[in-house]
Amino acid sequence: MEKRNILLKLSYDGTCYHGFQRQKNGLTVQEAVESAIKCITGENVSLTGCGRTDAGVHAEVYYANFETSSAIACEKLPLALNSQLCDDIRVISAQDVPLDFHARFSAIKKAYSYTIDNSAAANVFLRNYSWFYPKKLDVDKMRKAAEYIIGERDFAAFMAAGSPVKSTVRNVEYINISQNKGIIEIEIMANGFLYNMVRIIAGTLVYVGVGKIAPDDIPVILASKSRVLAGKTAPAKGLRLKKVVYGQEIYTEEN
Amino acid sequence: MEKRNILLKLSYDGTCYHGFQRQKNGLTVQEAVESAIKCITGENVSLTGCGRTDAGVHAEVYYANFETSSAIACEKLPLALNSQLCDDIRVISAQDVPLDFHARFSAIKKAYSYTIDNSAAANVFLRNYSWFYPKKLDVDKMRKAAEYIIGERDFAAFMAAGSPVKSTVRNVEYINISQNKGIIEIEIMANGFLYNMVRIIAGTLVYVGVGKIAPDDIPVILASKSRVLAGKTAPAKGLRLKKVVYGQEIYTEEN
Repeated sequence: MEKRNILLKLSYDGTCYHGFQRQKNGLTVQEAVESAIKCITGENVSLTGCGRTDAGVHAEVYYANFETSSAIACEKLPLALNSQLCDDIRVISAQDVPLDFHARFSAIKKAYSYTIDNSAAANVFLRNYSWFYPKKLDVDKMRKAAEYIIGERDFAAFMAAGSPVKSTVRNVEYINISQNKGIIEIEIMANGFLYNMVRIIAGTLVYVGVGKIAPDDIPVILASKSRVLAGKTAPAKGLRLKKVVYGQEIYTEEN
Repeated sequence: MEKRNILLKLSYDGTCYHGFQRQKNGLTVQEAVESAIKCITGENVSLTGCGRTDAGVHAEVYYANFETSSAIACEKLPLALNSQLCDDIRVISAQDVPLDFHARFSAIKKAYSYTIDNSAAANVFLRNYSWFYPKKLDVDKMRKAAEYIIGERDFAAFMAAGSPVKSTVRNVEYINISQNKGIIEIEIMANGFLYNMVRIIAGTLVYVGVGKIAPDDIPVILASKSRVLAGKTAPAKGLRLKKVVYGQEIYTEEN
C-alpha cells in the first residue's frame, strides 16, 4: 500500500487527560487517539500533535497527523474513530496532506484563550474550564498591560523556569480581552508559545487586574528576562487551544 | 429564636444528581443542600424548591426556601454553604422572605432553555449539556412550528402520559430559537410547565426541523390532547432552568 500522511482535526475536553503527549503515568489524548486508529486500521501509528498541552488543558481545535498505509477514505475516519473514543475527544475531520507535513512544525501561528470566572460565586458550568477568581478585576488595566505584550519580544520572563529552548523571542499578534458578565476571556494569537507562556501571561494580567502589578510594570518584567517578576502561572483548566493556522497548502477553517 | 424564611438562589450542574427533589435511590440536589444547611445551622431543615427537575437536568438559576431559627446573616450564607457543597452546586445569594413565601407557588413564570448540538461531530464541551443531533435541522421550520405553541393553550399532548394534574392549560409567553454555528437553543417562558413539557416540545421541534412533522401539524397535535402525535421526549441533559420570576415583594435579578 502507498504511504499516506493524514491530518486529523480534533477537539477535546482535557479534564480527564494528562495532556496530549504520551506519558508513562496517566492517560493522554495521544494514546487514546492512537488506540482508536489501531482499532480502525490495525496499525500502530505514531501521532504527531500540533503542540504539547499540559494536564487539564482543553482544545477546541487540535491538529495531529500520522503516517499510514491504510486505504480508508478520509471522510469515513471521523465517524469510525469517534466510535472508538470516549465522548470527551472528538475527531472533527480528516484530510490527506503532503508526506512532509508536520502538525507542529508546519503551523504558522496559534491562538489560545484563557478564561477567568470573576463572579462572586463560581459558575458551576465553567468549573473545569476557568480559573475562579472572585476578587473584582479591573479589565481596563488588564487591557492596558496587554498592549505591552503585543509584538515581537523576548518572552523569557513569561516562560516556566528551566525550559530548554533555543530562542525565547516570539511574536504576539494580538491579545483580545472580552468580558461577559463575570466571565473574562483572554485570547492570544502568536507565531509560537514558550512553555507555560499563556498561563503566565494570564496570571500576570490577573495580578494587574487586582492591583498587584501596574500596567506600566510590564515592560520592566519583559526586560528582566527572569520568571520571578511576572504573576503566578494560572491554573491549566482555564486554558484552551482555539486556532491553529497552517500555510495555504492545507485547508482548515482557521486559515 | 424567631422563625425566619430564607430564600436561596442556587445554580447547579445536574449531571451527577437524580434531580432536585429528595429520592430514595440516588443523591439529589435537595439532599446535598439540606446537608450543607445542617452543617452550618445545626438544623434539619426541609428545603422547598421552585420546581422538580429530572435527573441530569441543569439549573443556571434555581430558587429554594427553608424555615430556620438560626440567626446567621444572609450575606454570610453563600460562602458558608458553598464550603460544604461539591463544586457542581453553588449558592449564589440568600435573602429573608415573608414566612408565607413558597419557592414554587410564589413563582409567576419560569423560563427553560433546551440546547441541541446540531454539529456533524459532537461538541465535547456540550456533551453533558445538549442533545447531540447531527442530522441537519431546518431552524426556520422550527420557528414556524413554535409560533403555534405560543399563547394560552391546552398542552395535554405535550405532557408525559399519566401525569396527575388538575389542568393541562398553560400560557407560553415566548419561544426564542437561536442558532450559533451548530448549536441551537430553544428558550421557553411560561406561567408553568407540565411534566416533561419542555422536553416534549423540544423533541417535537426537532422532528419538525428534520421533516418528520410539518409546522402546520402542531395545531392538530395540540387539539388531539394525546401524547402519541408529538415528537419524542428530548434527553434530560439538554434542559436547563434559566429564569424564575416572582412577584414584586421579592427582589431577584430576573424580576
